[in-house]
Amino acid sequence: MKKEQRTEISSLGEFGLIDRLTKDISLKNTSSIKGIGDDAAIIQAEKRQVITTDILIEGIHFDLVYTPLKHLGYKSVIVNLSDVYAMNATPKQILVSIAISNRFSVEAIEEIYEGIELACNKYNVDLVGGDTTASPKGLVINVVAIGEQEKEKIVTRNTAKEGDLLCVSGDLGAAYMGLTILQREKQVFLNAPDANIELAGDNYIVGRQLKPEARKDIVDFFAEQQIVPTSMIDVSDGLSSEILHICKQSNVGCQLNEEAVPIASETYNKALEFGIDPINCALSGGEDYELLFTILPSDRSKVKQHPDISIIGEILDENLGVKLFTKGGNYHDIISLGWNSLKEGD
Amino acid sequence: MKKEQRTEISSLGEFGLIDRLTKDISLKNTSSIKGIGDDAAIIQAEKRQVITTDILIEGIHFDLVYTPLKHLGYKSVIVNLSDVYAMNATPKQILVSIAISNRFSVEAIEEIYEGIELACNKYNVDLVGGDTTASPKGLVINVVAIGEQEKEKIVTRNTAKEGDLLCVSGDLGAAYMGLTILQREKQVFLNAPDANIELAGDNYIVGRQLKPEARKDIVDFFAEQQIVPTSMIDVSDGLSSEILHICKQSNVGCQLNEEAVPIASETYNKALEFGIDPINCALSGGEDYELLFTILPSDRSKVKQHPDISIIGEILDENLGVKLFTKGGNYHDIISLGWNSLKEGD
Repeated sequence: MKKEQRTEISSLGEFGLIDRLTKDISLKNTSSIKGIGDDAAIIQAEKRQVITTDILIEGIHFDLVYTPLKHLGYKSVIVNLSDVYAMNATPKQILVSIAISNRFSVEAIEEIYEGIELACNKYNVDLVGGDTTASPKGLVINVVAIGEQEKEKIVTRNTAKEGDLLCVSGDLGAAYMGLTILQREKQVFLNAPDANIELAGDNYIVGRQLKPEARKDIVDFFAEQQIVPTSMIDVSDGLSSEILHICKQSNVGCQLNEEAVPIASETYNKALEFGIDPINCALSGGEDYELLFTILPSDRSKVKQHPDISIIGEILDENLGVKLFTKGGNYHDIISLGWNSLKEGD
Repeated sequence: MKKEQRTEISSLGEFGLIDRLTKDISLKNTSSIKGIGDDAAIIQAEKRQVITTDILIEGIHFDLVYTPLKHLGYKSVIVNLSDVYAMNATPKQILVSIAISNRFSVEAIEEIYEGIELACNKYNVDLVGGDTTASPKGLVINVVAIGEQEKEKIVTRNTAKEGDLLCVSGDLGAAYMGLTILQREKQVFLNAPDANIELAGDNYIVGRQLKPEARKDIVDFFAEQQIVPTSMIDVSDGLSSEILHICKQSNVGCQLNEEAVPIASETYNKALEFGIDPINCALSGGEDYELLFTILPSDRSKVKQHPDISIIGEILDENLGVKLFTKGGNYHDIISLGWNSLKEGD
C-alpha cells in the first residue's frame, strides 16, 4: 500500500469496483467464450477438464505484515494452477472471489489484481469470473482454476504401481524456511519498528514463500518427451504428506532415499542456523508447489536428462510400508506432520 | 447446533474432516468423472459450459443468530444454481470452499453439509471438490457451480431487443421482508432473550429469505415449450438493479408496469405494516432468486399459460430510457438502489 492515493471502496460500490478492476482484461484462450459481466462465464472445453479451488484466509494462510498485496494476488493464482499441473493438465481459466473489509482502499485491491493478472499473463490463463464483496474483518481470496487435457493423459494420485520411480521437481523446504525467516523478522519489527529487516541474502528462500511458481515447465517437458507419469500430486503440505497420499490412494508402499531429496544450499544452511534438520523442512514444510510424481522405470533415462528433476525413491509393495531410508542407513516410517491448518497445535 | 455431541474439528484435522463430510457422496451425472480426493476434479463436458461463483461471509451475507446452519448450506448452493439457470443452463457440478473458526464443532459443519447435499440431491448436482480450512473468526462459504447447455440455447444479459416482452417468475420482495422480520426479531431477542419470537404467520416470507429455491422449473418449461428467452438474469439484487443490467448491456430502454409486478399478499401486507411501499420491496429488496427475462412477442401466448410467470413490461428503444409506469399513471426513472454489500450506507 505504498501508493499515496486512497479511494474508498464504498465510493465505487460493487459494480463500479468490478468495472475498474476488470477493464483491461481480454480473453486469450479460444475455450473462454465469455468472461466477466454476466450471471456466469461461458466455456467451450476442447478436452476433458480438471477443476480445483483453494481459499486463502488472512491470519491463516497469509500475514499482510510481510506479504505484499501484489505477491498475494500472484500466489493465490499459482497455488491453484499448481493443482491443475499436478493433473498433467494445462490451466485455461480462473475465477476469483475476494472479500475485503473497508480498511482496504481501491488502490490496495488493484495491487492484488495486478498480481492476479501477472500470473494470468505468465501462465496464459483467462480470468473469466468471480465475486467481490465486503468482509467485516480481514481479507479472503478464493480462486478456482480450470484446465484441460486429453482423457488418456490426465494423471491422478491413485495409479502408482510397484516398481515405479518416485520423482520430484525443483527443491524442497525453501518456502518453509522463507516463512520461518519472515516470522522472525516480523517479531523483530513488532518489538522495534525502526529496526532494520534483514532479508538480503535470503532472497531465494523468502522468494519461494512469497512468490512461488507453478511447474508448467515440467508438464511441458512431459509432453515433449511423451512421458505420462503413472501418478502425480503437487507438494503443498510437505513431502511426507504427499507421498502418503499417493501410497494410500494407490495401495502401494514406497522407499524414499534421504540422500536424493533435493534441498537448496540456502535452505540447508538456513535450517542448520535455526537448529532444524534440513530433511524435516522438505518432509514437513509446505508450500513448495513442486510436482511429486511416479514414472515407469523405462522412462528413467528421459527424466535423467532434466536438470531439475530428482529421482528420490521407488514404489514398493504395500506390505513393505512407506519408509525413509536415511543417510545413516536406517529405515524410518514416514508419517504425516505436514502443514495442516486445522490440526491441533498448528 | 442443537445436537448434543461436540467433536472438535482439531481432533480430525483437514483430511479427517473432509473424509467424514464426504463419505456418503456419490456422483450422479455422467459428466462428473472424478470428484473429491485428488488435486482437482475431472469433468467431461457434453455441451458448452457456464461457470459461476459466489462467496458468503458471516456478518455480511448471513447472521447465524437466525440462520440455521443447514439452511445456510442449502442457500449457499441455491444462489449459485440460480446463476446457472439464469444462463438457461442445467447445473451439473459444484465445488465448495469452507473456512471455519474453532468455535464450530464437527457436528456444526456436518449440518452445513447436510444442507449442501440436500440441495445437490434436489437439483441433481454433484459436489466434486472444494477446500476446507481454518478461519481466525467467522464462517466463509464459497460455492462454484458449473452447468451445461447447447451453444444456441445459452442466454446472456446483453441480447434484449426493442419490442421484447419483459417477464419475471414467481413473486418479488418477500425475501427482503423476511430479512426485515428476522432482524426485528433478533433485536427483540437480544433485548430480552426469554421473549417469544413471533415468526408464525410469516412462514412464507421468512422461508423465502432462509430457504430460497432456484427456478429449475422455469428453465425446464422453456425447454418443453421451445422458448429461448432473448435475455435473462436472476433477481438477486432487486428488480431495479437487474432491469438496469439488461438494459445497459443490451443498449435498450424499458417500461416496467408497476401494476404487473408480482408481489405476494403476505409481502404486501407485511410491507404496509412496516410502513414500506410494497413496490420498493420488489424494486430494491434482494435475494428473490427469481428469473427476469425477455421473450419475443410471438412467445407471449406460451408464457401466458404458465401460472407463475408475469409479463411486467416491454423493451423499448434506448432513447426512451428505463422507466417505471406507476399505478397512478406517472413515469419515473428506474434507478438502482439494489442491495449492494460494498456501497456506502449499506
